[in-house]
Amino acid sequence: MISSPHNPKLKLIRALQGRARERREAGAFVVDGVRLVEDAVNSNWKLRFALFDETLSERGRAQVESLRSRGVDAEEVSASLMKSLSETETPQGILAVLELTNLSIPNLPTFVLIPDQIRDPGNLGTLLRTAAAAGVQVVLLPPETTDAFAPKVVRAGMGAHFRLPIRSLDWEEVEQVVRSAGLQVFLADMDGQSCWETDLRQPVALVIGGEADGASESARKLANEKITIPMKGDVESLNAGVAGSVLMFEVVRQRKT
Amino acid sequence: MISSPHNPKLKLIRALQGRARERREAGAFVVDGVRLVEDAVNSNWKLRFALFDETLSERGRAQVESLRSRGVDAEEVSASLMKSLSETETPQGILAVLELTNLSIPNLPTFVLIPDQIRDPGNLGTLLRTAAAAGVQVVLLPPETTDAFAPKVVRAGMGAHFRLPIRSLDWEEVEQVVRSAGLQVFLADMDGQSCWETDLRQPVALVIGGEADGASESARKLANEKITIPMKGDVESLNAGVAGSVLMFEVVRQRKT
Repeated sequence: MISSPHNPKLKLIRALQGRARERREAGAFVVDGVRLVEDAVNSNWKLRFALFDETLSERGRAQVESLRSRGVDAEEVSASLMKSLSETETPQGILAVLELTNLSIPNLPTFVLIPDQIRDPGNLGTLLRTAAAAGVQVVLLPPETTDAFAPKVVRAGMGAHFRLPIRSLDWEEVEQVVRSAGLQVFLADMDGQSCWETDLRQPVALVIGGEADGASESARKLANEKITIPMKGDVESLNAGVAGSVLMFEVVRQRKT
Repeated sequence: MISSPHNPKLKLIRALQGRARERREAGAFVVDGVRLVEDAVNSNWKLRFALFDETLSERGRAQVESLRSRGVDAEEVSASLMKSLSETETPQGILAVLELTNLSIPNLPTFVLIPDQIRDPGNLGTLLRTAAAAGVQVVLLPPETTDAFAPKVVRAGMGAHFRLPIRSLDWEEVEQVVRSAGLQVFLADMDGQSCWETDLRQPVALVIGGEADGASESARKLANEKITIPMKGDVESLNAGVAGSVLMFEVVRQRKT
């Protein structure tokens, strides 16, 4: 049982819970809780190791046994150390370190999401969760958006990270992907044409700007058109996660056979 | 300047930031930040008093002057006390206590939202924000849903509380409203008919269940039909705030002329 706070596994986890650079350098990220660990395993995601404590539920203990039978290193840690590691209010007594893996993307994607200047991890996680549910083929993250593998984003993503290809790119690379796939780029904006009057059956990239600053200059340059969700009343805007989600499902609606 | 933590205004604010019963008994709730206070004033909402501190921005100070010119009691409080009151990570140096007021609702509403067993304040706030933007005429809150005037819900609502009628009711009362208005009740559910194949132009009440427990037995009894947002891939569900928002804007889409 791990009981020293200086244990290298704990140090690694603390680093991975911090800045994006740490995750990129280590090529790994952390998931927290029975459900996410289970989802990672079922999605054939590669686990470096798992840590659990005595508070783990029966379902969680069965999971530990199953991990061990697959050759995954699953080690017990003292409950107090686990608590210090867990960032949730109700920790479930299990954490795993996963390999950062690039899921493959189609050569010519027809449904792409570009969250731009989204700083709130909950909003980004929600967008990723919806993107997975809406069949988005790849999410392109420009430099000003929060890192998709930060703990809060992973938690709000509810497993989206395991099935949705995500790429952190600079704007030149984003443009390259968009142009080479021949995507029409639609920027969500208060003054755009109605999303219901826009043909979203063509190959599209949706740009969703952050709530605080909207979309960046680079995003505005990239966009072919602005689209909007027509609103009632004197409401200023929707939550960025919601606006993106409504637009993604409008794409799905228009494309349904 | 208020510098005692035992000041009765501070005590009231602490109580109002707590349980729903405190808010109901006092007939008041708290809003936090320049933008929400401004929105409350512009919506002609009645302020009991406001508190500010020295960290308040220039725009905020102009607001204090404007409040005072309208006869609102706006008092300075020490920055440390303000910090202890504010629940946000980046407090803006102003708080106001507002009268809980019942906004009037149409006799025969045609667009009603019923968030059921929504316990997460952020999700409820998001639903209210979207409801205001989608032109929902009244939100009915059954007993198992978190209180709409809790601080985190107010914050996530981004001003929806000032223009959207909200009623906390027991299930009998909910049923009464629904039946007397002749509403068709649609419950958002994984196994329902596609929302895109459902006629939402008729008078409707949308029931959105919580993420943890789904909709309650009472909600299921009340519902005429289950509707679903068709999803791609093996994703289990959407965030409750997102699911409700996509459905609300589907109502708006179908009803647009």
